[in-house]
This record gives sequence, C-alpha cells and structure tokens, in this order.
Amino acid sequence: MSDDSAILGKLQGELRRGVLVLAVLSGLRVPQYGYSLREALVSAGLPIEEGTLYPLLRRLEAQGTLESSWQTDSGSPRRYYWLSPDGQRLYTALVSAWRSQVDVMETLLKGEDDQLGCHRGD
Amino acid sequence: MSDDSAILGKLQGELRRGVLVLAVLSGLRVPQYGYSLREALVSAGLPIEEGTLYPLLRRLEAQGTLESSWQTDSGSPRRYYWLSPDGQRLYTALVSAWRSQVDVMETLLKGEDDQLGCHRGD
Repeated sequence: MSDDSAILGKLQGELRRGVLVLAVLSGLRVPQYGYSLREALVSAGLPIEEGTLYPLLRRLEAQGTLESSWQTDSGSPRRYYWLSPDGQRLYTALVSAWRSQVDVMETLLKGEDDQLGCHRGD
Repeated sequence: MSDDSAILGKLQGELRRGVLVLAVLSGLRVPQYGYSLREALVSAGLPIEEGTLYPLLRRLEAQGTLESSWQTDSGSPRRYYWLSPDGQRLYTALVSAWRSQVDVMETLLKGEDDQLGCHRGD
C-alpha cells in the first residue's frame, strides 16, 4: 500500500501545483510579505514551502503581475507584494478559468456512485 | 497584451495539468478506448492531446491503476482501459482530495469583490 500512497501523494501534489499561482494572487489582493502570505495559505489548507513561494513571488514580480516595496517602519525590513493592475486583470481571468474548470470537473465526476464498481459498462 | 495572454494561457495549462489524471480516471470508471475517452474529455471542456493521453494511459496501467485488453469484435482492434481495483481506490481518494481543494480555493477566493482594487489594505 505504500506504493498507492506514493501515487496518491504525487497526484495531490499535481492538483496543488495547478492552483498555486491562483492561490498566491488571491492572497495578494492586499499587500502581504512572504511570511504572512505563506501562513495564510498554510492555514487555509494549502501548504507551500518557502523555497517554492519566494522564487514564485520574484518571478511574478519580474513578469509584471506583482509590485513590491520594502517596509522598514516596524523592526526588520519586509518586502511587501501586491497585485499590479495587470496582475488584477490576470487574477480575474484566472478566477474565471478556475470556476469553469470546477464546472467541467463536476460534470465529469457526476454519477460516480452509479458507475463505481462497474467494470464492463458498454 | 500578448504577453498577458501568454501568461494566462500558461496558468490555464497548469490548472488543466493538475486535474488531468483525475479526469482520465473519472472517464475510465467504465471501459473506454483512447479515442472515445479523448472525445469525452474534449466535449466536456478538457482538451487533451493524443500525445499526452496515450502515454498517460500506458503509465497508469504500468503502475497498476488501470487494466486493459484488446477488443477485436467489430472492425479494427481497440485497446480498452478501465480502473483496476487499486485504481478505483485511488480515484475515490483523489475525488476527495479534489473536493477539499475546491473548498480551500473557495475560501481563498471569497470576498474577492470586497478586496479587488485595494492596494494597501493593512
């Protein structure tokens, strides 16, 4: 059964990678620094490693999706990130793509109880 | 704007890759051959290339998730695939992971109308 868990773990990872950018953009509708964004994602149920999140933030900024600035007001300096105007448009389009995908998947999964256990259907 | 569409297209591709195996397993709760499965996925709104689907089917069979057999009854021989018992368990677990992810994302996306356009929230 350890093979089965490994396969399931890998597929869950694929599911998670698929929505990662959308989740990050969602969190950056308000300015956040990396640590607070990561905490928010983890506590919502979407674990993400620092080694994945921080390079992703830099990549999204480099492509113009995010803006950032250093804040030094209170204690140690922190880099805050938020959606650029292009990023807001991208976010809106991606939410729409995600909702369509949820509809598609619900259609495909529909009737699972009818079909499960049936090996020769046609 | 062509950059923006390229970025959006890439992210839509990531969304799609995330659910691809689940969609394929879903279709193979009843036996299907590659072509009919692909038609079903495309018509549900999940385009997939033959060059992606066929190697995926072979990989899923090699890892014990699918079973297959050649059918030669009517015309040209076709290889039918369907979920093995392990594959049925994997499918059930993956549906559950998918539904959890939908809940997580809906929580994260919640309040988007309140927050959009707000650049400095805290």
